[in-house]
Amino acid sequence: MNIKNYIQENETRFLDELFSLLRIPSISSESEHKGDMVRCAERWKELIMAAGADKCEVYPTDGNPIVVGQKTVDPNAKTVLVYGHYDVMPVDPLELWNTEPFEPVIKDGKIWARGADDDKGQSFMHAKAFEYMVKSGNLKCNVKFMLEGEEEIGSTQLYSFCEQHKDLLKCDVILVSDTGMIASDTPSITAGLRGLCNMIVKVTGPNRDLHSGIFGGAVANPINVLCDLISGLINDKGEVTIPGFYDDVVVLSKEERDLIAQAPFDEEEYKKSLDVKALYGEDGYSTIERTGIRPNLGVCGIEGGYTGEGFKTVLPATASANISMRLVANQDSHKIAELFQKHFEKIAPDYVKVEVISAHGGEAYRCGVDVPAYQAAEKAYMDVYGKRPIPTYSGGSIPIVAHFEKVLGVKSILCGFGLAEDNIHSPNENYKLDHFRKGIEVITHFYEHFSNDLA
Amino acid sequence: MNIKNYIQENETRFLDELFSLLRIPSISSESEHKGDMVRCAERWKELIMAAGADKCEVYPTDGNPIVVGQKTVDPNAKTVLVYGHYDVMPVDPLELWNTEPFEPVIKDGKIWARGADDDKGQSFMHAKAFEYMVKSGNLKCNVKFMLEGEEEIGSTQLYSFCEQHKDLLKCDVILVSDTGMIASDTPSITAGLRGLCNMIVKVTGPNRDLHSGIFGGAVANPINVLCDLISGLINDKGEVTIPGFYDDVVVLSKEERDLIAQAPFDEEEYKKSLDVKALYGEDGYSTIERTGIRPNLGVCGIEGGYTGEGFKTVLPATASANISMRLVANQDSHKIAELFQKHFEKIAPDYVKVEVISAHGGEAYRCGVDVPAYQAAEKAYMDVYGKRPIPTYSGGSIPIVAHFEKVLGVKSILCGFGLAEDNIHSPNENYKLDHFRKGIEVITHFYEHFSNDLA
Repeated sequence: MNIKNYIQENETRFLDELFSLLRIPSISSESEHKGDMVRCAERWKELIMAAGADKCEVYPTDGNPIVVGQKTVDPNAKTVLVYGHYDVMPVDPLELWNTEPFEPVIKDGKIWARGADDDKGQSFMHAKAFEYMVKSGNLKCNVKFMLEGEEEIGSTQLYSFCEQHKDLLKCDVILVSDTGMIASDTPSITAGLRGLCNMIVKVTGPNRDLHSGIFGGAVANPINVLCDLISGLINDKGEVTIPGFYDDVVVLSKEERDLIAQAPFDEEEYKKSLDVKALYGEDGYSTIERTGIRPNLGVCGIEGGYTGEGFKTVLPATASANISMRLVANQDSHKIAELFQKHFEKIAPDYVKVEVISAHGGEAYRCGVDVPAYQAAEKAYMDVYGKRPIPTYSGGSIPIVAHFEKVLGVKSILCGFGLAEDNIHSPNENYKLDHFRKGIEVITHFYEHFSNDLA
Repeated sequence: MNIKNYIQENETRFLDELFSLLRIPSISSESEHKGDMVRCAERWKELIMAAGADKCEVYPTDGNPIVVGQKTVDPNAKTVLVYGHYDVMPVDPLELWNTEPFEPVIKDGKIWARGADDDKGQSFMHAKAFEYMVKSGNLKCNVKFMLEGEEEIGSTQLYSFCEQHKDLLKCDVILVSDTGMIASDTPSITAGLRGLCNMIVKVTGPNRDLHSGIFGGAVANPINVLCDLISGLINDKGEVTIPGFYDDVVVLSKEERDLIAQAPFDEEEYKKSLDVKALYGEDGYSTIERTGIRPNLGVCGIEGGYTGEGFKTVLPATASANISMRLVANQDSHKIAELFQKHFEKIAPDYVKVEVISAHGGEAYRCGVDVPAYQAAEKAYMDVYGKRPIPTYSGGSIPIVAHFEKVLGVKSILCGFGLAEDNIHSPNENYKLDHFRKGIEVITHFYEHFSNDLA
């Protein structure tokens, strides 16, 4: 029985099983759901075992449990590790939902529920693709599953869990379906994720707030100085001026940039949706490249002086800003933080003091289109969609993926099937049944190509 | 009897009378003191009449009453108008006072009470100088008194009162003792006050807060743009770059700048008191000049994005700032507001929208050292202190003084006798008895020189 038929024949059961996961309100950010997290992990264990695993354990952590299951077909064969998460985002504001968030409904060809896409629906496709491979006797590689319950709150436990369980998680490639694709008729694979380097800067002038009349003009105003410093961080080509900032940036080949350029993009539509007259970014790069393969620097927050009701004529003692840099491969977030701090302290004039604090960072991730597992995924998409998937580079960050590569030494294939209209993290989250089905298909074809190509 | 002896002989009565004013808690910003405002105005009327006025009226207004009294010695003689205010600042925090704020005490050669300096003590010197001039038969000019009860809350009623009572207030010069002098042994006259032009600017980028990963690098960040715009408002010489900004600025003569330079000023002490390593201001001017005779621009408040606990990676939709310009004679606050708005809108790039709102303004005031009444005052100080007073230029703003000139067409002589250590607006306000006595002396000498010089 081919996979299409298998899905058709078993779809009612598939959905019943998925719904049993979706009905558990596993909101990781709300402590009253601690019990639901455990229930959800246990339910996953049952489903993985039922799908054909040899064993599966629920590992307690200092946070929510991590589920790891596996099926070994041949100790010498290659191993695929599937990563997903069973925790979901909160559901407020409830009144904006058309259906109950934790009572899944099928309507208009979509599954409606919190987690329908992110990430219960998407990770469950892997369980069913695995089931088919086992039942059909086609599975030629070993498979592991790892489901965590803290993705939406920063995967706090998973970093150390990976370090402590390198043998358990040993694999040749990681499959992740927790991203999106360009459109239903435009398949894509996420080939890169940006990293992150957040800095907090504080400029201090006089030792107290001063009367802006008595002192204004003779004593440097920390807000003006902060504006000067921030303004100087980007030049008139839209480039970050921190010395060494671009040194480690991976430069993509012409072929890779050509592939990126194939993505449909309507600049007028984009501007209209944001209500801006013009776009702004680094010279020499397209909008898609600016958010995907190029780093940038932006201020996420700024404050200083008085901004309440009325107008207070004060020369404030301090001003501060939260500055975030999105990084790309192979920039190192710690090195960038150091370069930033050194530069910011250097450009600060002597009439103020500056304090620079490194707030948080995460590494960028890149899966070159020449990686064999990526190419196996490409073939799988072509089998199902009849066209080559476009590599996309997400501007956002999923730092755990870079951590997988660092600790486990393997690439992740980010084969997500979500759409922008799926309302993840928002009311009325949904996931197209058609994507659910095609996703399962693509994954089974991946197993085939991955095993064959490596054989 | 000369003035020194007159003061000595009558000092107990002088202080009793002053204390009767100080005991009235005439706090204009606290509505429960409405009755005290009226009581204080009425007490002033009694004191002015007792000092020798022909008539005195308490004029009701939509706010607190205004007291106007006068003595006409000769309808053809020149007229001096004394301006002061009988309202005081609040007294919180009460626990920091060493004595009761509204129960005046003489201790260590000082009068301790709210209003002892600002402005009951200082304006009362004028009543006693006037009394002496009348009683001694030396008064050669007409004298008017005007006391308002809203100086500490922006003189809201006085602007229109002046416009509506031009004849009543007709005079040749206005005397005001509501400022300070450099030191007890360094007399000074305030020869200028800066004006004010406050602007609120708002920069809007996209129509909503965006994910800084998904959009960062392709869509302009309004905070970065605001920083660029603010940074561009001042050049590397510390000059404001708004075209036309300096066009109307009065350039002081070498003689005037030389006089200003005579003021004692210890830059190291100044920096130490502010805890700054270096000062910053417009090239080519001293610190005293930068705050006194030169305009400047500073940001009083800025906000945008997220600055709460933690770090939120957002590309915010908007950012805004409160920008204040201190002006000098003869800059017009309305014209400067227009120049600012035009310039700010012009330099804003097309990838953002900017909104510029004029918040509040007030005109600068200048009394040249060549004004005859100023020179009469100089002589009066020389009679009492044995040295020429230094002209000082206050960085702060007292917009009503510019309004007097505009509406009544006369200069004000700002002959204040307060010291920085008098704690005006703070707990333990005080006023030196020695300054109280010398102030009365100076004022009587002013009357003499003013009448003689004009005769």
